[in-house]
Order: sequence, then structure tokens, then C-alpha cells
Amino acid sequence: MSTSFELRETDGAARRGKLSTAHGMINTPAFMPVGTAGTVKGMHPDSVALTGAQIILGNTYHLMLRPGAERVAELGGLHRFMNWPGPILTDSGGFQVMSLAGLRTINEEGVVFKSHIDGSKHQLTPERAMDIQRLLDATITMVLDECTPFPATEQEAEDSMMRSMRWAERCKQAFVQRPGYGLFGIVQGSVYPKLRQRSVTSLATIGFDGYAVGGLAVGEGQPAMFEVLEATVPHLPKDRPRYLMGVGRPDDIVGAVRRGIDMFDCVMPTRSGRTGQAFIRGGTLNIRNAVHAASDRPLDETCRCPACRGYSRGYLHHLFKANEMLGPMLLTWHNLQHYQDLMAELRQGIEAGRFEEVARRWEAPATEAEDPG
Amino acid sequence: MSTSFELRETDGAARRGKLSTAHGMINTPAFMPVGTAGTVKGMHPDSVALTGAQIILGNTYHLMLRPGAERVAELGGLHRFMNWPGPILTDSGGFQVMSLAGLRTINEEGVVFKSHIDGSKHQLTPERAMDIQRLLDATITMVLDECTPFPATEQEAEDSMMRSMRWAERCKQAFVQRPGYGLFGIVQGSVYPKLRQRSVTSLATIGFDGYAVGGLAVGEGQPAMFEVLEATVPHLPKDRPRYLMGVGRPDDIVGAVRRGIDMFDCVMPTRSGRTGQAFIRGGTLNIRNAVHAASDRPLDETCRCPACRGYSRGYLHHLFKANEMLGPMLLTWHNLQHYQDLMAELRQGIEAGRFEEVARRWEAPATEAEDPG
Repeated sequence: MSTSFELRETDGAARRGKLSTAHGMINTPAFMPVGTAGTVKGMHPDSVALTGAQIILGNTYHLMLRPGAERVAELGGLHRFMNWPGPILTDSGGFQVMSLAGLRTINEEGVVFKSHIDGSKHQLTPERAMDIQRLLDATITMVLDECTPFPATEQEAEDSMMRSMRWAERCKQAFVQRPGYGLFGIVQGSVYPKLRQRSVTSLATIGFDGYAVGGLAVGEGQPAMFEVLEATVPHLPKDRPRYLMGVGRPDDIVGAVRRGIDMFDCVMPTRSGRTGQAFIRGGTLNIRNAVHAASDRPLDETCRCPACRGYSRGYLHHLFKANEMLGPMLLTWHNLQHYQDLMAELRQGIEAGRFEEVARRWEAPATEAEDPG
Repeated sequence: MSTSFELRETDGAARRGKLSTAHGMINTPAFMPVGTAGTVKGMHPDSVALTGAQIILGNTYHLMLRPGAERVAELGGLHRFMNWPGPILTDSGGFQVMSLAGLRTINEEGVVFKSHIDGSKHQLTPERAMDIQRLLDATITMVLDECTPFPATEQEAEDSMMRSMRWAERCKQAFVQRPGYGLFGIVQGSVYPKLRQRSVTSLATIGFDGYAVGGLAVGEGQPAMFEVLEATVPHLPKDRPRYLMGVGRPDDIVGAVRRGIDMFDCVMPTRSGRTGQAFIRGGTLNIRNAVHAASDRPLDETCRCPACRGYSRGYLHHLFKANEMLGPMLLTWHNLQHYQDLMAELRQGIEAGRFEEVARRWEAPATEAEDPG
């Protein structure tokens, strides 16, 4: 028995579900904080859980290079290694190889690349990607795919997608099934609806425990992304979770849930938090802005995270000006809480048949909405 | 009524006491974690409290420059600003002016200096030091003194000490007494017993709520430091707490408690933690050392801190190698726990009349005692 998904409620295309795994249950729609190198940067893992996160994401590329998949396995697997007993989804490493590694050579067998850390040479094939994620003890394993660059001609997108489908088949063959563990396929096809639909058909024929939509949030813009979702998601098996990779801002997430997506991951809340950008109701603010220096208001009056309950904007501003670690620690916590609050409200909205009412509250403009002090 | 000190037990010269303040009670001997710029670096304040710390130290020099004492006052004082409701002792800024600031001019009036942050010009006088610490809302205020450089001739040490005594008198005049708040004097006199004793007499005549021994841990070495304590502490009023400023390693603390000191502060546990050095029973280890990469042992089997309960040395090593914030966060927590465990055991030892037995357990060599894996 792999992971199992129960679809509990729908409201339009929006879905309220429950994903059961070997390491615990995940309420969907769900946002997965990113723990790239075996840590959600600046957060104790029990703090991550306190925000309401039930699953986190790990990056195969980073972990295979440092400390190495075999080392993680020796030290008890990623859950024990990083002290996160809950579910972990690992990506396949393909995306990061293309964006971070040096001297990449990609062919039918797989991809050869040089580490961005020490220049050492590595190979990633569908079989090795499965092997690494098994060594990491990933609850949910992702197939190795090629994230088609954007823009791509229809022919380029087709060639790339077809290779990803052949790799998906090899991943399915190599994946070692264990109770409560799952393997997700990844839909490619760039912005071409027919390619996306062919990709869905290929993957559904192979059969996966969940389906990701990949190759988005790579510069195509929100309207194009939503169009791709509308051309793709309705064709996906209804009884499996759907995961939109690498997305996004709160309004991206709302729009994708509206179109039937169940799972998300993005570095935005953590990365923004480290640089002083906070997500608040109605927009974002940059705490480094001088307007906050004398403010005794909390970051967000409606938020129950430690940053908002314990500190003034003036203090948080001071921490960033003084380059104190606690600044990134507190803003990361707040942003993760903000994202989890978003997901909790979306789930409640779907349950109550009032998804659109909740959605409107969160679809703030995606621009910097700096408010005075 | 200022702060009040109750001496509960003694074992030899070692003292077990209780210091009552406007912001809470402090069991002595006590170690104060250093929160230089309004934060104990890398620690949430509730985590600092979880280690057992009952009082922290703030640095007047850093806070007067950024964000400024008036700003801290506007934002509710240092307790509210940094979300630490417990007692806070602030130093007077004199020591940091001499070690960090540029272009210092010291005369009878006070000291003029340039900020190491932005080059702006500032003055610190005994009166301004009292004013700043009142604006910060320090539970315990320290007099402005001149930390006599080491080495100093007896004449230099005398001139410097005498000026500090005149400043101490001005501080006492300027200090605004409030219930549960205290003002501590600082004994100077370098390594010269007679000067130390004259300094004690001067301060006791003025009358303070506590007495610090300053001008030590500046390069004189542990034997000379202990000699100064032996020539100084017995002359201090018995009914007031004694504070050894800027000290030290665990064995320094044990030796000073043996000689009658009640309070300590030092950046060592926090600063070492950030660079990967951990204090463990029997010595220290550097977690960056390759010997730890594959170790599944905890940092210290006897420690109950999150770093020791939740993680292997192999994981902590990985965090430091990958420059992940969680590495400094966890090692700082551990080192602060180690120091608080030391203080708790010393207090228990004094209560039980077995101080020397406890002391021996903690007087490990002060050198790097790296153990294999």
C-alpha cells in the first residue's frame, strides 16, 4: 500500500483532501516549506511544525552533494538526520542541476554535471534519482524529469516532454514500493495544451501516487500559468493529489487551488523572510524600510506567530539593520505562518462551500504594498 | 527599596544567594548570557529562558548607537523591545568604547568617541551613562568606569582607578533610584592588591547595590586573576552581590565562585557556538572537525538541550559545513545550556556543602579536548 489520498470536499474545482503516508497525514490543499539542505533555513523543526506545516520538501541535488545520500542513510535517513519525523517530499534534483550545477551534459541516459560546491563530477539518471531518494528515506519521491526551459518552441517542448515521459517510466520501474511511501509523476509540455494533455495521458498510463505539474513559474507569468493549469488539471486522475511545483505567491496559490491543485512548495516565504520582506494581510512590506524604525505596531495584527505576538516593527527593523540572526529567524517564522494560515483558511473555505469568499480575502495585489508604519 | 540580596548558604568562600529585582528573582551564582544589541544572538528569548537563565546582559555602547537609547525608551524599554520580561543588567559602555570605538578622547568629564558603525561623534559621561541606562530601563545599572588597560604601571593603575572612583561618585548622584532597580559599582586597580583594596573602600563608602570586579580577563591570565580576587573579594560587603565582569571559561567561573563571586557574564558560549565550538563535559570540541562527519552520537550525552536531544554530531557538522543558520542556533543553545547547567550544579553543590566535589567535575583543562567522534 503506497500513500493514499482521500478527496473529502470540493467547491467548484477546489479540493479538500487528506493524504495519508508512512510519516503522517497531510491536509490538502497544503504548502510545503522548503528545507533545501536538510534544514528549513533559520527554523527549529518544531517551530516549523508549530506553524501548522505537515510536510516539508528536501532538495535531492543539495543533499546528494553534501553530505551525500549514503551519509544521510548511515545517519538514519533524512527524518532522523534533520529531526523532522513528519512526511518529507524530495524533488528529483533535475531542476537544480539545470539551475545551479556547472557543465551539464544531458542525454537519454541522464545528466552529467559538476557540483557547484566543489566542482566534483556527478551523474543523475532516473535509476540513480530513485536510489538517492530511497537512501534519503523520502516519504514522497519525485520522478527525474527535464524542466523544459522557457520559452521553448513546440518541437523543443515536445522532445523534452517525451524524454521526461521515458524517464518517468524508468523511474516507475526502479522505484522500490514501501507501505505509506509514494512516487509522483511530473507533467511537462511547456505552455502547449496538447503537449500537456499527452504528458498527462502518458503518466496516467504508467500510474503514479500523485501528479505534479512542472515547468511552470519559470517566467511565463501568472495568466499563462493559470491557462496551463486549466488545460492540464481537469485531465489528471481525480483520486490522486496534484502538486504545482515551485509555486508561489499567495495569489498564485489561491488561483491554483481554484483550478484543482492540492500541494505547493516555494522558497518565497523563507527566502523573503531572510532579506526582510514580510507577507502580511493585504500585501508585503520590507521591514528594513526606515518608516518602520519607530513603529510599535506588530508586523501583522491578525497573526499569532511569535514575531507578531512578541515584537514591534521597530524592533524587527533594528534586528535587520544590526544584521542580527534573530531578524531572519523571526521573519521566516512569520512568513511560514502566513502561508500556513492561508492554506488553513482555503481548506476551511472549501469545507464550508465558501472558497471564493476566502479567496477574495487573500488575492491581494502581488506588488509591494508598503503601508505607512 | 532597590534590588535586595539574600545570602542563603555558604561553603567555604562560595556563596548561594538570591537577588530580588523589579523584573524577577535571580539565583546566584548566576551566569548572564550576553544580548549585546538587544538580542542574544541566534536565540529566541523564550529559548534563553528555557536554558535556565534568569538575567541577561545588554551592551549600552551598542544600544546607544543603534537604535539609540531614546528609541528603545519610545518602544517601551529594553524588556519590551526585545521581549525579555526578566531582569537585564546593562554595562556602562565604557569597556566597549575603549575596545570598539574610534578616535577616543578621555578626560575628567568623560569620553568622546566616534561610532564604529557610522563614524558619528558621541559623548559618554557618568551622568549620560546613568541617563542612557535609565532610558533602556536596565534592572541593574553599572557605573561608568575606565577599564584600566593591561599591563599598567602601578602609577597608571592608580590614576585610572582614582578617576573611576570619582566617576562612581558622580554615577551614584545621577542615578534615579526606583523600587527593585539597582546600581553596581566597579572595583578597579589592575593587578595591585593595595589599589584594589582602596577601590573597594571608596565604593563601599559611596554605597552600591552590588559590586563588580572589573579590569580582569584582559590578558593577565587565570592565576593573576584569581590572585586579584583573593586580594579583593574578602573586603567587599558581604550583604551585596559580587559580579566578575566578562568571565569566562567554565573553570574560570568555578575558581571565581570558590573565591566568593556571585555573578558572571561572557560572550564565550554564544560566540563560540556561532563558530562551531561546543562546550561539553570534559572540554570542548569543534564540530567542523571532519571526525564528526559520520558520528551519530549527540554532542553531549548528559545534556538535555534541543541540540543534544534532537541531533547527531554528523548533522551538526553538516549544518556548519553548509553554512546553515541552524548550526549556530543549535550550538549557541547548547553552550548556553552547558553554562546554566554548570551554575545550577554549583548552586546545588553549595547548598549541599559539597562545592568542591562539584567543582572538580567541572574544572576540565581549558584546552581543546577533542575526542574521537
